[in-house]
Amino acid sequence: MATLYGLGVGPGDPDLITLKALKILQAAPVIAYPATTSGESMARNIAAAHIPEGRTELPFAIDIRTAHDANEERYDIAARDIAKHLTAGRDVAVLCEGDPFLYGSFMYLFARLAEDWPVVIVPGISSLNAAAAALARPLVAGNETLTLIPATLPEDQLAARLQSCEAAAILKVGRHLPKLKRALAAAGLLERADYIERIGFPEQRRFKVTDLAEDAAPYFSIVLVRRADEAIR
Amino acid sequence: MATLYGLGVGPGDPDLITLKALKILQAAPVIAYPATTSGESMARNIAAAHIPEGRTELPFAIDIRTAHDANEERYDIAARDIAKHLTAGRDVAVLCEGDPFLYGSFMYLFARLAEDWPVVIVPGISSLNAAAAALARPLVAGNETLTLIPATLPEDQLAARLQSCEAAAILKVGRHLPKLKRALAAAGLLERADYIERIGFPEQRRFKVTDLAEDAAPYFSIVLVRRADEAIR
Repeated sequence: MATLYGLGVGPGDPDLITLKALKILQAAPVIAYPATTSGESMARNIAAAHIPEGRTELPFAIDIRTAHDANEERYDIAARDIAKHLTAGRDVAVLCEGDPFLYGSFMYLFARLAEDWPVVIVPGISSLNAAAAALARPLVAGNETLTLIPATLPEDQLAARLQSCEAAAILKVGRHLPKLKRALAAAGLLERADYIERIGFPEQRRFKVTDLAEDAAPYFSIVLVRRADEAIR
Repeated sequence: MATLYGLGVGPGDPDLITLKALKILQAAPVIAYPATTSGESMARNIAAAHIPEGRTELPFAIDIRTAHDANEERYDIAARDIAKHLTAGRDVAVLCEGDPFLYGSFMYLFARLAEDWPVVIVPGISSLNAAAAALARPLVAGNETLTLIPATLPEDQLAARLQSCEAAAILKVGRHLPKLKRALAAAGLLERADYIERIGFPEQRRFKVTDLAEDAAPYFSIVLVRRADEAIR
């Protein structure tokens, strides 16, 4: 019986793929990945150097900037296309930016296919771990909690979550940056927040959030913040 | 000038190391890692297959079960030993279980050495990402927040954090399991909680927390929970 693989390919640097994902990727006859409606695929770009020639490729169009409801039919179609290959006995490896089960689109394919097919998930480096490494800034230590917060939340919820956090990684910043700045200020955390975009790509840039003039950021940018006064020592 | 590397080696499976960490590990003349006071090193065990023969190895004793204060002098000594190699022009690679900057002991070496030496941090697969993959259970989706909670917290704080979370990964479960069970019950989440231990090792085991009779678990065990009634689809 053919197997469906969900492969984390990491956040950007092609060398941040795991050996396990690499071995599966190089053996899989069919390689699927999410793409924008215009055909760009960040997951494929990250893994490009590792994809052998002559493999069947199966991009599936998803619009990550719209609500999930608007993509449900797209996932149905992608799952159907993947199932055709599985039925024909061909393993399918789905490339996933970052980690497949941390805000990843793979979980929606998993929900549609896991009842009928064996599924193996290979975890990947999440953008927040890569952000901490690139910023040389520990995420969380000792007895502290860390909250992962999508910047897509309404402003009052964003502020409430920041208010009650000890340390936070704010994901999917993008066009939500002005709202996020206000919420950070309301939570008394604006001065402590670091921003990074295009982690692991040649265009990587970092700023203190207070020094960040632009009102728009790439979708996959991240802000890290920690409330404690004492440095980690 | 010699460089200090903090290398995430992942949570257990030797194949969950990244290509980037592997390349640096295989080139580094000195390999350091945390060990228990009796000399066992989980980080070295994970990376063992990748360590070339004839490298200088530098274990440093840390007691992860005691408060950080009790280890400060141990970190001072480890940092001094590492600095001797750096001063002699030898790069030092520190092996880190999981990710170096997510509750990792590397951050305490970083705090002691980063002012004087160039430091490169390579992120690693965190145990929570590996737990989600092994349990075939997404961590968090869409607009939800995910809170990372150390089970070492006092019971009232544990219960309060669980009460206000949407999804949580509870780390460092170990001997805190009975307290954690009570806190999960108080937060109305006991029935939804999955437990996994020794992720990626041959001895890996998983349970619903309600089916978990034992009152002791290994230190590096994890509980995942999500509050929402709707499945991720």
